[in-house]
Amino acid sequence: MGELLRALEASDASALLAAAQDIHYADLAALYENLDDEKRDLLVKTIGPELATDMVAELPDTLIEDALNHFKPAQLRVLLGNLSDDDRVDVFQVVSEEAQVRFFSLLGPRDKELTRNLLKYEEDTAGGRMTTQIGRITADMTVKQAITVLRRDRDDAETLARIFVVDIQGRLVGKIRLRDLAFSTWDTPIGDIMDEADEYVLATADQEEAARTLSKYDLVVLPVVDEFHHLLGVLTYDDALEILQEESTEDIEKLAAISGEQSEISYLNTSVKLHYRRRVGWLIGLAFISIASGYVMFRFSETLEKAFVLSLFLPMVVAAGGNSGGQAATMVIRAMALGEISAGNAMRIAWKEARTGLFLGLSLGVAIAAFIALLLPQLQQGTGAAFDFPHLAAAVAVAITVQVLSATVLGALLPICARAINLDPAVVSSPSLASTVDVSGMLIYFTVAGSILNLH
Amino acid sequence: MGELLRALEASDASALLAAAQDIHYADLAALYENLDDEKRDLLVKTIGPELATDMVAELPDTLIEDALNHFKPAQLRVLLGNLSDDDRVDVFQVVSEEAQVRFFSLLGPRDKELTRNLLKYEEDTAGGRMTTQIGRITADMTVKQAITVLRRDRDDAETLARIFVVDIQGRLVGKIRLRDLAFSTWDTPIGDIMDEADEYVLATADQEEAARTLSKYDLVVLPVVDEFHHLLGVLTYDDALEILQEESTEDIEKLAAISGEQSEISYLNTSVKLHYRRRVGWLIGLAFISIASGYVMFRFSETLEKAFVLSLFLPMVVAAGGNSGGQAATMVIRAMALGEISAGNAMRIAWKEARTGLFLGLSLGVAIAAFIALLLPQLQQGTGAAFDFPHLAAAVAVAITVQVLSATVLGALLPICARAINLDPAVVSSPSLASTVDVSGMLIYFTVAGSILNLH
Repeated sequence: MGELLRALEASDASALLAAAQDIHYADLAALYENLDDEKRDLLVKTIGPELATDMVAELPDTLIEDALNHFKPAQLRVLLGNLSDDDRVDVFQVVSEEAQVRFFSLLGPRDKELTRNLLKYEEDTAGGRMTTQIGRITADMTVKQAITVLRRDRDDAETLARIFVVDIQGRLVGKIRLRDLAFSTWDTPIGDIMDEADEYVLATADQEEAARTLSKYDLVVLPVVDEFHHLLGVLTYDDALEILQEESTEDIEKLAAISGEQSEISYLNTSVKLHYRRRVGWLIGLAFISIASGYVMFRFSETLEKAFVLSLFLPMVVAAGGNSGGQAATMVIRAMALGEISAGNAMRIAWKEARTGLFLGLSLGVAIAAFIALLLPQLQQGTGAAFDFPHLAAAVAVAITVQVLSATVLGALLPICARAINLDPAVVSSPSLASTVDVSGMLIYFTVAGSILNLH
Repeated sequence: MGELLRALEASDASALLAAAQDIHYADLAALYENLDDEKRDLLVKTIGPELATDMVAELPDTLIEDALNHFKPAQLRVLLGNLSDDDRVDVFQVVSEEAQVRFFSLLGPRDKELTRNLLKYEEDTAGGRMTTQIGRITADMTVKQAITVLRRDRDDAETLARIFVVDIQGRLVGKIRLRDLAFSTWDTPIGDIMDEADEYVLATADQEEAARTLSKYDLVVLPVVDEFHHLLGVLTYDDALEILQEESTEDIEKLAAISGEQSEISYLNTSVKLHYRRRVGWLIGLAFISIASGYVMFRFSETLEKAFVLSLFLPMVVAAGGNSGGQAATMVIRAMALGEISAGNAMRIAWKEARTGLFLGLSLGVAIAAFIALLLPQLQQGTGAAFDFPHLAAAVAVAITVQVLSATVLGALLPICARAINLDPAVVSSPSLASTVDVSGMLIYFTVAGSILNLH
């Protein structure tokens, strides 16, 4: 890494090439991201299309087109031809339309057809992420015939960890391990040593569902089929790792009201402008929602004026609702993402959260009531407020119990309702929920306190 | 699945056994989780130790000991012997001390030593998750000799996707693909076809770091070595998938102030008591922190009484700080989890967030000021407040800008400081940050509004 940077600094092409050959393409891509334009140009021109192929496949989406534009058409033809078919489709999915047309014209006839077929599938489906370069044999072959076929395709096959067995119509009928091929006698029929291929996924399935299936069944590759069970390709474990990391980053960001697709560019390399763009929308939206809480507070100004001591516990009641609602929403959203619960479970979830919320609310209510009863009378002189502390304790305790109970149930049900009407549960969640719960907190607090303390 | 449930319902042992043989162990484990005690007993007793082995390895930690206690010692001996060595260690790591001793006495001498060696490593390190059942050959062997050795170990080797080459002292010197073995002539020396094993991880490394290394370099298996470069075992891609899913669930839960290790039991199967326990601590803690905000509000009661219209925008200023601070904290925490930034970058991060926060604050300030200037005069009659609206707009806009700017910088720096003093950045984050920022929001708002509107 250090050598490569020194060679770049010195513009020493031969040292640069030597250093680049010694480095893993993932590291090369990470390094490329941190360079300025001039150094990027020097780097890709020096290492050439052969060495750049794997690096380009690892780059963040937004940097790919720019990286490819450093090459002349003849070099680009080599690079695009070298890409594995799923990486090539990824490239076409992220570049501009102009570049799509230009790059497409550089492909060989077979790659053109392959790319066209794969581009049919949405980027975030199993079909959009699969590779079609897999070992395919039929059940009536012998081990020797199978090895001959696979050896011919060897350079093309991205993974031989699993080889799939298809019938003459190309439908998936079984799978076999390379180790079973390697360790069996040459005249064994494939049909004798193949296993059933019970786990597979439709090409139109969501990429996250496909990745979780692969993970659940501990598979290296998951076959992707069409609706007639034709074997189209496979999703590999490294695709699954990437998908799950992308999806969990997205989920985490949505919970914090950060919008837009995750850029794949690292935090430090993301511009202030992009950071701003991803956050400003929700921030302004949520700010205006907060005016509703302000309005409730303003309406109850008389209540507050009569007993200003109520302001001591107002933020607590409001925040407790936001926190408990956020906890419930997060648990339910994560469980939905992991496929553990669905809209059909809504009643069971509501019941579970209602009990949890009730116990949480009561605990909080008792804790606060005890705090007020024990400590506040001593502060009474300090504040100069002449007040009925048992009633104040009761008012705060009841309000916080009701607030936590209702926020918990609301927090659990909101993501389920969102999913039921096809909205993203993670987006309709913690921050937007918190703003909603703020309003109910104000209302509950002033209403409960107003009645118990006789302030209306 | 349906068949198995029917057989369980009817207590039909032979149908149950047949159905269980047809089902994937991951599905069997998911099903077991949902059964009552009586049916769990029937299931494990019917399928016996052989079939139960893989299922037990897939169960949530908290259910493992109970599941094993259904077996007689002789059966348990078989089951424990059948477990792969990493799964066996996982079992010993999660059961009670009493069970540890009892189970250990059932192991064969080789398994005893293996287990004792693996138990040295913490559960969440590469060493604690690795398997030691791997193919090991030396560079001076021929392909034929290597295949003979590997065939002998075949049943023991959990993965042959990568075979590692060691020297006579057992130090890692290279790696080789099974496909290269299978497709090379038998007299080829291993040294000619092996690759360098550049990627490896220390046994004491954190499991998440190991999983990310495997993912970054698209490896099926990552070798685990000790400080003298002796090959101890490997971490496989399915371990990595599991680790990354566990860790992101934990990160998401921490951001929502849910404490304790993720239970692995699905949401619906987690008891109300456990849901309660994981949430109540933070909820009460955060509630008491909120009293600080209440105290600030109470102290500024005079300011508020003089201009009750200020209450309309109080929740907005406070919430904007919580939201913008939460966004910044989440981005930084996620970037740290992905290894993109470290404490050394603190100044660069602060500078980036200061600029982002300034633009966010200004945008929000301008939006709110425009809203107040345009719409509020019409509401003036409604509220009966006689007020200087340009000054009010200025006060709210300045306060919200200062609040968002300071919350953004604080949100970004807090996780970095937490990491620097070895606290968990995700725990010291969004919710606790929000409570802190609430206080500063109240202070900023009342101070700014008080000066601009001349209320002191």
